[in-house]
Amino acid sequence: MLQETLATAPLYIAMRDDDNVAIVANSGGLRPGARFACGLTLVEQIPQGHKVALSDIAAGAPILRYGETIGHAVSAIPKGGWVREALVLMPDAPSLTNLPAARGAQHPLEPLEGFTFEGYRNADGSVGTRNILAISTSVQCVAGTVEYAIRRIRDELLPNYPNVDDVMAITHAYGCGVAINAPGAAVPIRTLQNLAKNPNFGGEVMIVGLGCEKLQPELLLPEGMASAADDSDIIRMQDESLTGFGEIVDSIVAMADKRLRALNLRRRETCPAADLVIGTQCGGSDAFSGVTANPAVGFAADLLVRAGATVMFSEVTEVRDAIHLLTPRAVNQDVADALIREMDWYDRYLQNGEADRSANTTPGNKKGGLSNIVEKAMGSVIKSGTSAISGVLSPGERVREKGLIFAATPASDFICGTLQLASGMNLHVFTTGRGTPYGLAAAPVIKVSTRSDLSARWHDLIDLDAGTIATGKASIEEVGWELFHMILDVASGRKKTWADKWGIHNSLALFNPGPVT
Amino acid sequence: MLQETLATAPLYIAMRDDDNVAIVANSGGLRPGARFACGLTLVEQIPQGHKVALSDIAAGAPILRYGETIGHAVSAIPKGGWVREALVLMPDAPSLTNLPAARGAQHPLEPLEGFTFEGYRNADGSVGTRNILAISTSVQCVAGTVEYAIRRIRDELLPNYPNVDDVMAITHAYGCGVAINAPGAAVPIRTLQNLAKNPNFGGEVMIVGLGCEKLQPELLLPEGMASAADDSDIIRMQDESLTGFGEIVDSIVAMADKRLRALNLRRRETCPAADLVIGTQCGGSDAFSGVTANPAVGFAADLLVRAGATVMFSEVTEVRDAIHLLTPRAVNQDVADALIREMDWYDRYLQNGEADRSANTTPGNKKGGLSNIVEKAMGSVIKSGTSAISGVLSPGERVREKGLIFAATPASDFICGTLQLASGMNLHVFTTGRGTPYGLAAAPVIKVSTRSDLSARWHDLIDLDAGTIATGKASIEEVGWELFHMILDVASGRKKTWADKWGIHNSLALFNPGPVT
Repeated sequence: MLQETLATAPLYIAMRDDDNVAIVANSGGLRPGARFACGLTLVEQIPQGHKVALSDIAAGAPILRYGETIGHAVSAIPKGGWVREALVLMPDAPSLTNLPAARGAQHPLEPLEGFTFEGYRNADGSVGTRNILAISTSVQCVAGTVEYAIRRIRDELLPNYPNVDDVMAITHAYGCGVAINAPGAAVPIRTLQNLAKNPNFGGEVMIVGLGCEKLQPELLLPEGMASAADDSDIIRMQDESLTGFGEIVDSIVAMADKRLRALNLRRRETCPAADLVIGTQCGGSDAFSGVTANPAVGFAADLLVRAGATVMFSEVTEVRDAIHLLTPRAVNQDVADALIREMDWYDRYLQNGEADRSANTTPGNKKGGLSNIVEKAMGSVIKSGTSAISGVLSPGERVREKGLIFAATPASDFICGTLQLASGMNLHVFTTGRGTPYGLAAAPVIKVSTRSDLSARWHDLIDLDAGTIATGKASIEEVGWELFHMILDVASGRKKTWADKWGIHNSLALFNPGPVT
Repeated sequence: MLQETLATAPLYIAMRDDDNVAIVANSGGLRPGARFACGLTLVEQIPQGHKVALSDIAAGAPILRYGETIGHAVSAIPKGGWVREALVLMPDAPSLTNLPAARGAQHPLEPLEGFTFEGYRNADGSVGTRNILAISTSVQCVAGTVEYAIRRIRDELLPNYPNVDDVMAITHAYGCGVAINAPGAAVPIRTLQNLAKNPNFGGEVMIVGLGCEKLQPELLLPEGMASAADDSDIIRMQDESLTGFGEIVDSIVAMADKRLRALNLRRRETCPAADLVIGTQCGGSDAFSGVTANPAVGFAADLLVRAGATVMFSEVTEVRDAIHLLTPRAVNQDVADALIREMDWYDRYLQNGEADRSANTTPGNKKGGLSNIVEKAMGSVIKSGTSAISGVLSPGERVREKGLIFAATPASDFICGTLQLASGMNLHVFTTGRGTPYGLAAAPVIKVSTRSDLSARWHDLIDLDAGTIATGKASIEEVGWELFHMILDVASGRKKTWADKWGIHNSLALFNPGPVT
């Protein structure tokens, strides 16, 4: 797969033997006349990550990468020529009818035993990797007040509770001014319900609401908790017993204090790796994403699945063009049908907004060598590894099964992360080619770069360099194992991610497919 | 209009002589047998703000409030009976064809001269009421980093620049992971472009972007500023010249320092009231909204228009059912047609999401006595006063005319506020019946309560009590003048709003009618 040669010599990376294109690996790209070890010579300049034709490609002929047709040649491309975006005609997405039937994993994976991490076990059986108090909010109106209260809680209370990592607000732009009965409303509502149950919050739910909002705060109480009649977990700012801002803030601080006391009693204990719920995502992808970082994540995903853990992959528009590769991996036809159902829902959602899957791929993706969403998707789904797909979640649903799960989400980075948190993610793995400083307050985020250039430049933002795979310094297996061990270390609190060291935390972003009013 | 009697005696408020319902004014409501001064006697208990039948209403007969049909009786309602929500059948919205033609104001308003405020005059002629450095962001990815830099700027730089009020980031969930070419995308893009030009930011634009995002940062530069080629106002985190998070943050801090130095040289100067751009909005409305706070705002709006200022009213779903009252107030048929165009756009937007205007009205609105969106709209449009409508803005457009402007926005509080800021609002007036702690970092917000109960309870959140109008302690004119003077004081920095005293600032919320990807 990888040409064994010096990193400074012309180097390309082909993914499959029958591919007729490969990507230029060299930093800075290559000039015309550059000659690869196999004898191929460039007929024009090609930037790093961009595709070179390995043979003459006739006009209309398929362009093959990852063994898949990522497009057809708009005009003839000579051997050694640059297969630039303008020469690649994007094919239609695979039809959702007549997809291959479910048959599970072709090579069932061996169980992997003996790996553990130190986590916070919750009453519901889930395990946190952090010990955080989360204050839910039912409507954006209260966000400024809750943030004010959180500043007081941080200053006045947190120093008394050294075993608590942080306090955060689950704030959002939902809750009122929205069509709460529209079909799309189910998504943001269940997302907020399930966010409060994230394992990193230890089951200590409290909700601040206003009173007059459409999303009444009791709707955010987890099932089995206090009934709507019992308001011991809810503060409504409009409650007539609360006089003024001062009393409102005092009541939030007092409710938080009780919960902090409970959280402070928690201690990490040794848990099997099976208790991990890992969300995977890529953002700012480039042509190396599918070559280095995502295959390493895929290898680690297989290790995690073998260890009995839950691994989620997501991002519908980055899966859509690979759906024919995924349905056969479903453990049964119900799971395959659920995959198709989520693709179909999203096709219609985009169509309703007069867009389609091609709206995914950014200027940066293209600059990084990705011609279209088909090529991006082929590189994206590699994060899922090789195991059978055990289950499918609609956006914001809580995960029920172990193993590899497709959690349907938009590819939008923070919407995806928010939905994976709602699904129960206790640690996030994020790969990036162009570079993003992504961070979440609710769960640690391990950032993996696709290129060593980026890791070197962003030495204090990138946690793991998978670019070594492209230069031949490390194998996919080696980086995959390194990531696996890093996951256990970060989950245990033994190692801090760069985002957590700096405290870079992006806001949550709800997916609301319904209209605002 | 108002029964002159003791506040403790049974009191109702009717809006027009031909109304067949009125609302109960008494705090706590009234019991069966309560007898009003006119002889009307209640036949059942009616909560405060809810409607009493002033005469027998036959099944199917119109229910009239504000001289308009707010519904038809589901079954017969006796004189003195409670006209509860379940008895009010909502009529269809007025058809958008054959609406009354534009004819301007029926009684042109006298100019009002001699009123001034102390503001910060900008090079483009606009005037700020605050002196704030705003850092624009082109994509959510950079938000955590910008917030980190802002903490440093606040600590290290702001103390050196005493004439600068604050530094804030224009953060949002847009910029990538969105269908940037979908028809709906124009709205969030122009909103971000225009937010940077808000008069309170003094024309000192700087933008932090990532590099690979769909919304390329140069798109946020105001026209006439540095060209895309001149990047002196843009930091791209992925720029190869920036090594690591430390250098990225340093570069943001350094760019901010230059702009703070310029902003610090600004001084308030005496400006005519005509330089005000006031955004009006209501949130958490109740049946008193249209009786007390909104009429007072409408009176102040007329004063402002007479003084040559710009006054915006908004909230399409709260205007839709009163459109037949607004088209005749347009200064010309183009303006009337623009009003209709915005209503039609929103009708289709809601329909596309399988919702309609009835999705507006919250549990709190209903508890406060508002039966449906028709009744809510009649009370809402009163904020616009009586002057001619000079212009119409599509969501996020920058205001061009003086006078009364309809700025089309959703009614969702923070989306409306964000769009009004983009339109150029330099001060916000917000009325509330149920109570909300609404605040914005970019412009002062004067909060006006509809009821004295709320003002008493939220003594440290509500800036002005219009509830005195319901109890007869003050007239609409008196409260309107009080608001007008308060606007001048707050605009001048002589008076701080409660939200600013506490520093309660809600996040901006973009209106994105397009899909995410």
